[in-house]
Amino acid sequence: MAMTMRSITAVVRPFVVGVVFAFAILPAVATDDPLPSWNAGATKQAIVDFVMRVTTEGGPDFVAVPERVAVFDNDGTLWAEQPAYFQLLFALDRVKALAPEHPEWQTQEPFASLLKGDVKAALAGGEHAIGEIIAATHTGMTTDAFAAVVHDWITTAKHPTKDRLFTQMTYQPMHELLAYLRQNGFKTFIVSGGGIDFMRVFSEGTYAVPPEQVVGSSGKLKFETEDGQPVLIKEPALDFIDDGPGKPVGIQMHIGRKPIAAFGNSDGDLQMLQYTCIPSGTHFCMFVHHTDAVREWAYDRDSHIGKLDKGLDEAAARGWTVMDMKTDWGTIFPPE
Amino acid sequence: MAMTMRSITAVVRPFVVGVVFAFAILPAVATDDPLPSWNAGATKQAIVDFVMRVTTEGGPDFVAVPERVAVFDNDGTLWAEQPAYFQLLFALDRVKALAPEHPEWQTQEPFASLLKGDVKAALAGGEHAIGEIIAATHTGMTTDAFAAVVHDWITTAKHPTKDRLFTQMTYQPMHELLAYLRQNGFKTFIVSGGGIDFMRVFSEGTYAVPPEQVVGSSGKLKFETEDGQPVLIKEPALDFIDDGPGKPVGIQMHIGRKPIAAFGNSDGDLQMLQYTCIPSGTHFCMFVHHTDAVREWAYDRDSHIGKLDKGLDEAAARGWTVMDMKTDWGTIFPPE
Repeated sequence: MAMTMRSITAVVRPFVVGVVFAFAILPAVATDDPLPSWNAGATKQAIVDFVMRVTTEGGPDFVAVPERVAVFDNDGTLWAEQPAYFQLLFALDRVKALAPEHPEWQTQEPFASLLKGDVKAALAGGEHAIGEIIAATHTGMTTDAFAAVVHDWITTAKHPTKDRLFTQMTYQPMHELLAYLRQNGFKTFIVSGGGIDFMRVFSEGTYAVPPEQVVGSSGKLKFETEDGQPVLIKEPALDFIDDGPGKPVGIQMHIGRKPIAAFGNSDGDLQMLQYTCIPSGTHFCMFVHHTDAVREWAYDRDSHIGKLDKGLDEAAARGWTVMDMKTDWGTIFPPE
Repeated sequence: MAMTMRSITAVVRPFVVGVVFAFAILPAVATDDPLPSWNAGATKQAIVDFVMRVTTEGGPDFVAVPERVAVFDNDGTLWAEQPAYFQLLFALDRVKALAPEHPEWQTQEPFASLLKGDVKAALAGGEHAIGEIIAATHTGMTTDAFAAVVHDWITTAKHPTKDRLFTQMTYQPMHELLAYLRQNGFKTFIVSGGGIDFMRVFSEGTYAVPPEQVVGSSGKLKFETEDGQPVLIKEPALDFIDDGPGKPVGIQMHIGRKPIAAFGNSDGDLQMLQYTCIPSGTHFCMFVHHTDAVREWAYDRDSHIGKLDKGLDEAAARGWTVMDMKTDWGTIFPPE
């Protein structure tokens, strides 16, 4: 729900023509390397060093297991976010699917333009138009009904240029990193601007992150009884935006302690990294830098989606790790 | 923060003269009984049967480990709540402690009456007065500063009639139940009307429930930078009341799946039990019934605090378990 003016422009731009990269799938081999998709180099070494330090009992940087909290942004950090946030693509698909039940949409903006295939005109209404689309596709139903709709979409819809399921648009190196941290006593959380009820449908199956470890944007919920059954209705009022300064707030609300590791990719993650890595203590902060226009996408300071500008400057000033996708990742996406 | 008119009357009533019960502390003995403080009987049997059923692989009621979510109310369920919610006693103590910094309180209600020892007059202002007290004692500081204040109080303050630390006003049988469920693959959550930032200070040490598994009432938070350090300021605006119909909402917001076991003691827990036990499937719901005026307190349908009225009727109609403190618990409080 953290769709802003920045994302609108991203959507109306002609969809980036993605080059489907037929990457070689290496046979599974026994290896001591917990991060086989990460190329050797300073980034990989920094991650391994950090994990060694916090897990070395008696060492100066040892961190007790309950305090080993790691937080991950989702869009652009765990899965791709081009040519538009995937949750917005879901919403647009839902408008088309729901149109037969809403004959009034044929003449009512932003739906009329959307149904004619004119996304640019539909989103000309800015945040109000986005709000209308989110309300029409994400609210007015029970949480269970919404989860079923998301499940149907996430298991069938394909990325517009890569022709892959969206769960296959996740990053193989980040899957390995999540698993590596968990093997070392970390509890891994997603802290994303995406909708909490949207992400929870696939977070456990895709990332092995259970619903209770997902923090996201949310709308108001209302408890009701329908046909004798207690249900929660998703109401059309925004409750919380888990982006920018909202991320440390979401972390406190849901986790209740400071993370010791934070991973993001945009300025919307900057406060989360500040909250994690400015206080004294052992910690690790990393930005995923999208530098690979061939295998994925390349964008940063001037991007309308996933803009990384202040974050790059602050990372340089504070010595945070900036991962370079082109050189640091041997593989981008998991095998199909 | 879920202080309502009901609780006000409870506070202004003369504090119940508690009989300090010098219970026998049994020596620790090796036993196969996971619930030694629970007397043999239908309640204990129902709990053990439920755990056996959900953990029997291949059985009709088997529940996979990730779905074994159990939720517990705190006030009156995990620890006592008489003669007033302990968090309100904390707030009253804080008013006294902060008075030297607030000379204006000598003439400003509700503080003036409180400082004269006249709790009844102080709370005559109803919810507005309570709100003033909560705002003065729970907000306008960082989350870290608040946690430090709660820590100081919870490790030193004594219950007004039982003369015990409040963490020793917890129920020994519930400690055993929490541990028993966890040993059987359950994830245990606190879902309480109490303040989330208040409970998290002692939830891990007292109940072995980590901060990220505590759901409670909360105020708004604001991210700021103070002297170069990122902090979260507790603002004087209420954000969420985790009571009554708010409990299923809090469960969805924080946990994201339906519990299969719910434990409460008052009508404020009714919707949480409905949400857990009305849908089809394997589940267990229990009310703690305060029936022991000698060792603890006895109250239910007419109580101004922890009122259990509709809940008793619905439990009878639906076959939920109603635990009887006087007969079901061999021990109430843990050894000092």
